[in-house]
Amino acid sequence: MSNPFVIAEHTDSVSRLTLNRPDSFNALSEGMLDSLQHELDTLPGDTRVVVLAAKGRAFCAGHDLKEMRQHTDQAYFDALFKRCSHLMTTLLTIRQPVIAEVQGLATAAGCQLVGTCDLAVASTKATFAVSGIDVGLFCSTPSVALSRNVSRKRAMNMLMTGEFINAETACDWGLINQAVDDAILTESVLNLANRIIAKSEVAVRTGKELFYKQLECGIEDAYALAGNAMACNMMAYDVGEGIDAFIEKRAPEFKHR
Amino acid sequence: MSNPFVIAEHTDSVSRLTLNRPDSFNALSEGMLDSLQHELDTLPGDTRVVVLAAKGRAFCAGHDLKEMRQHTDQAYFDALFKRCSHLMTTLLTIRQPVIAEVQGLATAAGCQLVGTCDLAVASTKATFAVSGIDVGLFCSTPSVALSRNVSRKRAMNMLMTGEFINAETACDWGLINQAVDDAILTESVLNLANRIIAKSEVAVRTGKELFYKQLECGIEDAYALAGNAMACNMMAYDVGEGIDAFIEKRAPEFKHR
Amino acid sequence: MSNPFVIAEHTDSVSRLTLNRPDSFNALSEGMLDSLQHELDTLPGDTRVVVLAAKGRAFCAGHDLKEMRQHTDQAYFDALFKRCSHLMTTLLTIRQPVIAEVQGLATAAGCQLVGTCDLAVASTKATFAVSGIDVGLFCSTPSVALSRNVSRKRAMNMLMTGEFINAETACDWGLINQAVDDAILTESVLNLANRIIAKSEVAVRTGKELFYKQLECGIEDAYALAGNAMACNMMAYDVGEGIDAFIEKRAPEFKHR
Repeated sequence: MSNPFVIAEHTDSVSRLTLNRPDSFNALSEGMLDSLQHELDTLPGDTRVVVLAAKGRAFCAGHDLKEMRQHTDQAYFDALFKRCSHLMTTLLTIRQPVIAEVQGLATAAGCQLVGTCDLAVASTKATFAVSGIDVGLFCSTPSVALSRNVSRKRAMNMLMTGEFINAETACDWGLINQAVDDAILTESVLNLANRIIAKSEVAVRTGKELFYKQLECGIEDAYALAGNAMACNMMAYDVGEGIDAFIEKRAPEFKHR
Repeated sequence: MSNPFVIAEHTDSVSRLTLNRPDSFNALSEGMLDSLQHELDTLPGDTRVVVLAAKGRAFCAGHDLKEMRQHTDQAYFDALFKRCSHLMTTLLTIRQPVIAEVQGLATAAGCQLVGTCDLAVASTKATFAVSGIDVGLFCSTPSVALSRNVSRKRAMNMLMTGEFINAETACDWGLINQAVDDAILTESVLNLANRIIAKSEVAVRTGKELFYKQLECGIEDAYALAGNAMACNMMAYDVGEGIDAFIEKRAPEFKHR
Repeated sequence: MSNPFVIAEHTDSVSRLTLNRPDSFNALSEGMLDSLQHELDTLPGDTRVVVLAAKGRAFCAGHDLKEMRQHTDQAYFDALFKRCSHLMTTLLTIRQPVIAEVQGLATAAGCQLVGTCDLAVASTKATFAVSGIDVGLFCSTPSVALSRNVSRKRAMNMLMTGEFINAETACDWGLINQAVDDAILTESVLNLANRIIAKSEVAVRTGKELFYKQLECGIEDAYALAGNAMACNMMAYDVGEGIDAFIEKRAPEFKHR
């Protein structure tokens, strides 16, 4: 563990997970997948926001092609993509919002990571592609995340050509929330994290869960789920305090329950 | 009724419903919900377009927090959100297009109203937020409308931070159709309403119904519904007149049947 | 066949299908629907990309209103729209990517064609509308394609008013991928086609199929389908060659299997 795949730092309610294989562009090797999954599965109880960051020129270049090339068995790949998809759905289902802090290149499953995080802030130097097509492998699993973030012709163009878009375009298309100067990237992400941490934990947690559930429903079912979620949320201590504070024009003191 | 919650004016096929509690930011109190529902349920037979407008600095600030704070029973809130969701689905299912005329702040369920209306024109001074999170209450029901109008990371950012976007951004993200100068807001909405009123009522009515239905289907089912809707529409008097007028290069005289 | 509805040219793996009724704005008459369907059903085995182009001032003005006006039987229209919807789903299900090359006006089912193609490049002079509403016929089937390309309020505005948007707006809204100068339209489309042809055929084919399937699924099912598609794709000769070439920093020599 002298050189962990993922560096986990837990400070002031933020768990910062840093992909730590800069020389291999933080490829999602088996080791990297396991480490990241492990960190997400064992977050401290007081983590309120997860930041997914990376070291080096790449945020993440997707699967580890060299490692994959050593296998020829379809069952191996079935298991590998299942593992990777499980990691992605973990990001969607853990109770904390996850912010991608994208400092460099994000390709294939690396671009999928960005698409899957709840929020994303990138350096203006970051670039994005789903470039598996360049080695003969269509980015099928990344397309699941990409096509739920950007419109279909834009997604199709990226998938069929493998071409890169820059951070400005990614922001314009909705793949990321902000593109900021490299020098203030970490600070911008922390600022966003802290704005969320200031909110009630109950509201953030139940809201994230509801948000993705209702997205998969028709309107009637979506409203049934959402109405129920809000009625439950109303029972929390924090709402009473929040409304009282609002009426009394003071800052609320959330107990996060 | 000397000071109605909603002022209803019916002129030249337009029903203009104006939220009339400027001092309480047109909050969706029980009285406001009932009044607005009542107006939508009892629109005159000759109403072709509904305009949802408001008086004061706010378009609508969402639920009435003071009124809510007087209740502690989850069943009450279940019923309240059910009532509000019913109002929203009424906007989607009445046969007339509904245009939001947004002159000011639209927050929480107020932002949901804008998202739910078929079309929306706003003053450049209008602002939009789903800010329940600030009082500890995630805007779950508003998220249903918001996430069907703007891309998921943008929706999530608004929901998690409670922060405002201005009318220009709302337009860029697809939450509203136009942002116009305050001075020409009502005129712009009326102009849009009249362009729709000039069309065949049969086409507008059956089109609105089909549009939301097919959105919830896969492609095959969507085309089955849409093909059937068009074949039915072809049976209307107006289509014969419309096509004849088109071929003869004259304006059609629709009988709206 | 001295004056075919559709001119089919097959060169260097590109099948260029040109709508050839410029005087009737390339309306989708029965003859045009049959011809285009026939060409798509009988593409040469070595076609890698289909380009859908058109002659004259219009790309396609939708259904043939004069022809339709000669019928009064709902069963006829049911069959007509079924045929047209089958053409649209054929574009989605053939194994080759289809690029719309839009040189002029694209209205009603013509706009639907653009929305349905996998990719679209338009002249800056091209314009887009779903203007059936002007003759009393809501563009229900075009709305299926339109609403899966642009956000709902923008789609609704186009459908209810029949108004045109220009190529720049179509690009901004995601209906097309690029708006280019008229003089370089064909060249730009060919360039895009050739970039796709350089990729592995297996990857492009299985990718297109997976892309539209997963779009209709919830996240869990989408990942199950996508993971399986990628594992199958990994078994192709091309992936081994592609990865080896990548590692050896040379261009891959795909055999397209």
